[in-house]
Amino acid sequence: MLIRKSDNNKVSLAGHYTLRVGIRPLLLFFVIIAFFYFHLTAAGEELKSTSFNLMPWPVKAEITGGQFRLAENFYLGGEVKPGHRVFRAGTRFMSRLAGRTGLFFEQDYLAAQEISNSTKLFYYFERPGQLVPGEDESYQLEIYPGKIELKAKTDLGLLRGFETLLQLLSADEQGYFFPCLRLEDFPRFTWRGLLIDSSRHFMPVEVIKRNLLAMSAVKLNVLHWHLSDDQGFRVESKVFPRLHLLGSDGCYYSQAEIKDIIQLASELGIRVVPEFDLPGHSTSWFVAYPEYASAPGPYQIERKFGVMLPVFNPTLEKTYKFLDRFLKEMTALFPDPYFHLGGDEVDPKHWKENPEIQKFMKKNNIPDEPALQAYFNRRLLKILGKYQKKMVGWDEIYQPGLPQDVVIQSWRGQQALVDAVGKGYRCLLSNGYYIDLMGSAEKHYLNDPIPPDSPLTAEERKLVLGGEATMWAELVSAETVDSRIWPRTAAIAERLWSPPEIRDVDDMYRRLKVISLTLEENGVNHLKNQPMMLRRLVQSDQIKSLAVLAAVSEPIKGYSRHSQGKSYSSLSPLTRFVDACYAESFQARDFKRLIEDFINSLDRRQAEEIKSKLQLWQTNHQKLVATVAFSPVLKEIIPLSENLASVSQVGLEALRLILNGKRFDPTWLQASQKILDEARKPVAECELAVLPGLELLFNYLKK
Amino acid sequence: MLIRKSDNNKVSLAGHYTLRVGIRPLLLFFVIIAFFYFHLTAAGEELKSTSFNLMPWPVKAEITGGQFRLAENFYLGGEVKPGHRVFRAGTRFMSRLAGRTGLFFEQDYLAAQEISNSTKLFYYFERPGQLVPGEDESYQLEIYPGKIELKAKTDLGLLRGFETLLQLLSADEQGYFFPCLRLEDFPRFTWRGLLIDSSRHFMPVEVIKRNLLAMSAVKLNVLHWHLSDDQGFRVESKVFPRLHLLGSDGCYYSQAEIKDIIQLASELGIRVVPEFDLPGHSTSWFVAYPEYASAPGPYQIERKFGVMLPVFNPTLEKTYKFLDRFLKEMTALFPDPYFHLGGDEVDPKHWKENPEIQKFMKKNNIPDEPALQAYFNRRLLKILGKYQKKMVGWDEIYQPGLPQDVVIQSWRGQQALVDAVGKGYRCLLSNGYYIDLMGSAEKHYLNDPIPPDSPLTAEERKLVLGGEATMWAELVSAETVDSRIWPRTAAIAERLWSPPEIRDVDDMYRRLKVISLTLEENGVNHLKNQPMMLRRLVQSDQIKSLAVLAAVSEPIKGYSRHSQGKSYSSLSPLTRFVDACYAESFQARDFKRLIEDFINSLDRRQAEEIKSKLQLWQTNHQKLVATVAFSPVLKEIIPLSENLASVSQVGLEALRLILNGKRFDPTWLQASQKILDEARKPVAECELAVLPGLELLFNYLKK
Repeated sequence: MLIRKSDNNKVSLAGHYTLRVGIRPLLLFFVIIAFFYFHLTAAGEELKSTSFNLMPWPVKAEITGGQFRLAENFYLGGEVKPGHRVFRAGTRFMSRLAGRTGLFFEQDYLAAQEISNSTKLFYYFERPGQLVPGEDESYQLEIYPGKIELKAKTDLGLLRGFETLLQLLSADEQGYFFPCLRLEDFPRFTWRGLLIDSSRHFMPVEVIKRNLLAMSAVKLNVLHWHLSDDQGFRVESKVFPRLHLLGSDGCYYSQAEIKDIIQLASELGIRVVPEFDLPGHSTSWFVAYPEYASAPGPYQIERKFGVMLPVFNPTLEKTYKFLDRFLKEMTALFPDPYFHLGGDEVDPKHWKENPEIQKFMKKNNIPDEPALQAYFNRRLLKILGKYQKKMVGWDEIYQPGLPQDVVIQSWRGQQALVDAVGKGYRCLLSNGYYIDLMGSAEKHYLNDPIPPDSPLTAEERKLVLGGEATMWAELVSAETVDSRIWPRTAAIAERLWSPPEIRDVDDMYRRLKVISLTLEENGVNHLKNQPMMLRRLVQSDQIKSLAVLAAVSEPIKGYSRHSQGKSYSSLSPLTRFVDACYAESFQARDFKRLIEDFINSLDRRQAEEIKSKLQLWQTNHQKLVATVAFSPVLKEIIPLSENLASVSQVGLEALRLILNGKRFDPTWLQASQKILDEARKPVAECELAVLPGLELLFNYLKK
Repeated sequence: MLIRKSDNNKVSLAGHYTLRVGIRPLLLFFVIIAFFYFHLTAAGEELKSTSFNLMPWPVKAEITGGQFRLAENFYLGGEVKPGHRVFRAGTRFMSRLAGRTGLFFEQDYLAAQEISNSTKLFYYFERPGQLVPGEDESYQLEIYPGKIELKAKTDLGLLRGFETLLQLLSADEQGYFFPCLRLEDFPRFTWRGLLIDSSRHFMPVEVIKRNLLAMSAVKLNVLHWHLSDDQGFRVESKVFPRLHLLGSDGCYYSQAEIKDIIQLASELGIRVVPEFDLPGHSTSWFVAYPEYASAPGPYQIERKFGVMLPVFNPTLEKTYKFLDRFLKEMTALFPDPYFHLGGDEVDPKHWKENPEIQKFMKKNNIPDEPALQAYFNRRLLKILGKYQKKMVGWDEIYQPGLPQDVVIQSWRGQQALVDAVGKGYRCLLSNGYYIDLMGSAEKHYLNDPIPPDSPLTAEERKLVLGGEATMWAELVSAETVDSRIWPRTAAIAERLWSPPEIRDVDDMYRRLKVISLTLEENGVNHLKNQPMMLRRLVQSDQIKSLAVLAAVSEPIKGYSRHSQGKSYSSLSPLTRFVDACYAESFQARDFKRLIEDFINSLDRRQAEEIKSKLQLWQTNHQKLVATVAFSPVLKEIIPLSENLASVSQVGLEALRLILNGKRFDPTWLQASQKILDEARKPVAECELAVLPGLELLFNYLKK
């Protein structure tokens, strides 16, 4: 599906393209392509057969014909000074454009971006945007053969527009260009977040920075920063320095680093919402301050994972004095109007066992432990209010009497969100966006904060602010975290930005593969760390057979890695084969689609394609065994590789039988079924992602 | 060459190994191997046929037989507290060991490293090391079947020992182990540095940090940080904030970041020597302070590269007042006793053209401009002395009367060092270590600060403190800098640490390939960024043909990239094919060695190996052309790929002719010679690194 120049030297954008499906699919990024969305209309007329690699998909766009050709005389201009958010966005834009095209732009875009006779890309905005929910992020983009205009109400809108323009970069044999079009865009939800858990595993500053850049590339606008938990207290407190000195193993963010990150986020139009999880998930606080806990100390930083017992004592006045002083410091450090206080998963054991606490409850007519937590929350709310912050908390913070300006983040289910909205609370959806569960992009993509069948009224829908992907960090390290966030979070970003009707899963995947590559220019290492990790495991650069296996394997889903025999702690190595595997195998997905197509068509060419894949997997095992012979750490994956060989062998035979009229021996069928069933069991905390495709083929044979 | 367990379950370390040369050479890291150095003796007896992948090579080691087997009950212990330099080194050691082996160590080495009954690795030191030249960095390592002892005079020695131990990690089919041995080691030179130029291209904090980690892995101990130059002033000055605010395009290190980097360096036993280049190389200062320049302003940050005219005015008293206040601030910020003031490449033009300066010179009997620079230096020396710093400067600072406690860094040639030492100055060698010139590791490796034929006396030799690799950053970005520093700098690190007799180039390369892989665990991306860059250029993950070409191409040498038609500035993209190529192609080197061997042996198997490589390169061109069709930025490399195909075709024919008795047609010979000559011309700023090998083959045919 490549755009070709026609003889009269005009690229045929709106019709005369040549279809060449299946050839180098990822090249498509630079090329104008065939599937066109209902919202994109060409020269006034609807075209369903062309598309771009935009993600999130814009609200409205119209192809106007022709191209803006890119050359070294490309200048951008707006009337802002160096240091301004948009100026720096312009600098990054030019630098990324130069990086992709190799063009030596004439403009010294670091020194000045004034509008002049040379200006080709004009950007305008009316007022600086505020980093608060509800702020205007809309933009308009008009590309003509001779100039490009990017306009927005706020500078935040311009940032979003720059990203869209970069995604529109195209190429043909003559060079680089932008297709002429008129595009209008604005987000569906105002709160589009990614939670990064820096407590379970510390995420150094550069992890946060590169992920902020990647977030901005897909128009996410909230970093929800989970900064304290049982396993670590990660913020420098100048008021209570023992918090970070004793609670972090030396792994914490200095206040200067936090300010620096907030500054970068602000430049990218991203809010930073800190979370200090209270009153549970708080072991690391008590290493320094056992006196605020509900059970006597001493406490140590927790190494294991799960719901732990340590919990603040909500019946002591000194607890609130302490938290008041702490929150006074932190609310000043983090400028966002919202402040997250966690509130999830409180185990009531220590409250039940502490007679003083029980006495307090009786005395104050607090009927049970959830009510005690509600009491705690009311006290904290008062403190936050004093410092002009609005509170955000997880599901569990809801209790009768909770003030309505609290935002509730739903993690336990869609129903929790519906309930909370029904009671008048503003809500965020995270259930269904738990990327640490290693689910598919499809699953996350189709998870809508307001699904088509939502029972919410129009008024209630306004209370759904948006959602957040959650990167809980029990089983991710600074080295692997990018590959767990990306590219799947881009699909969530589209869900939260684009109109709800945009939900074609195949098209999403087509674009996601391209976006995954372009995200690399923001520094995220979700792709490039895999070969590095495989090299380390085998201590060699001969990793071909490992890569073949890794490409069709996935970490097992949910939290089941914790029940496979290894007892994980925050010190456990996250460097094994399972950690090198991507959360979702695109190869496996493509293979399943290929099988589906083949079953429908019985096309011989598709059969050949299937066969060559199966042969690759089948013959890979022997090579892999030789490769891992002197890598004890890789011994565990030999059965996985063996399974891949066996099921591929079954697949090859099934394919042959299908092509030859399905005459099979029932003994073979039974034996093969057993092989497939066997291969479904996790090995080395991995599963074979190609199994569903193979089962499809096998079941078709059986029919 | 893999160690096999013999039947009685003892690994045959000292003799009964099985030779299997040529199989997966990089796997060897984990395996005890056959070539043994003169300094390593096994069980008292000299063994020339076993070796380890140590780099730098240690002074003395003796194999004692047997192994220490690694298991989850591996505990390390010393008597230091969390936060201590050695404690944190122990933590990193355990974490890297776990990362490579996948072992879930039982010890909570983050919380405590006390010596107990469980301790297997004992570390001891006598006193904390000082980060000054001449400090003791020696260590002793003894590995027994049941325990490991690491001892050192100072904690710095322990850091060096931990790295050696990690390099000794071995594996067989049963698991991981350390070979039993006694090892004594200490550095030949006390100043083993890497210069990173953060001015020409800004290198963000994470670049510095990961390179510090990699430096420590090869026992380098000085980061020479080039912090100001014409193209940028990179340090926050609280006294003169306009320096960094106007002189850096917003790309500078805050003082908090600098302290953080110095802290990490100190933990790694690395000194940080800042350089502020004066009086030339100073345009960026004058953007804020034109009044200290020798010609009237205004000035702008320089975008081009080369020797620029702006220079401080050394005749104004206010210049020294300004520099005094500035140096007072900076000498307090950087704790190292040495401070580098540059002093290189002063263009005297502005001094000659300024009548006030000329008048001053006449009045003060300053005969010429070099003498004026000497006057300037004497004034600065006095200021530095006031703040208890010793001065370091480049060659040019030498002038009669220069105090003898100045350290001179020789960049213009070995002779400059000999001269300066002859005059009693302590010296550093950088000439021959200019890694930005894209030379081979071999060239740098054989460049000795005190070569065998050195005319220096024994006393004079003591004045040679060591040397520094210099990563000048005109043509490197944060994205490519690691691949220009590593792995070649590891060879320089060995030159500066190991005894001078260690200079077997082939063995150095054997080990360098392994060390290059293990360096990745420190976060340096010298290997993993190449595929990423190729993906960006082609906007696809189908990069096989590009990778084949990149693996045998190198950026052209010296500074000739500046004369190939593109005019580089600090804004130019450094993302093209040439930037993705490694500085040195190991494949090309191996190919040349293969040709050499073949010419000696005329071995048919080697001929087959050569043939298969040549066929790969020959047939690659067609694939590459298809790959780059829609990547305008890659058009420039088509002739390079075509050249590779043509010279490979010549090579194939030459090989055939050699095997068939060298009967060739003189016309063919002439035409082929022309093809080889043609291919020697740079294309897209690259050269074909396999050409020398092919020429060898061709010339052998002609003989």
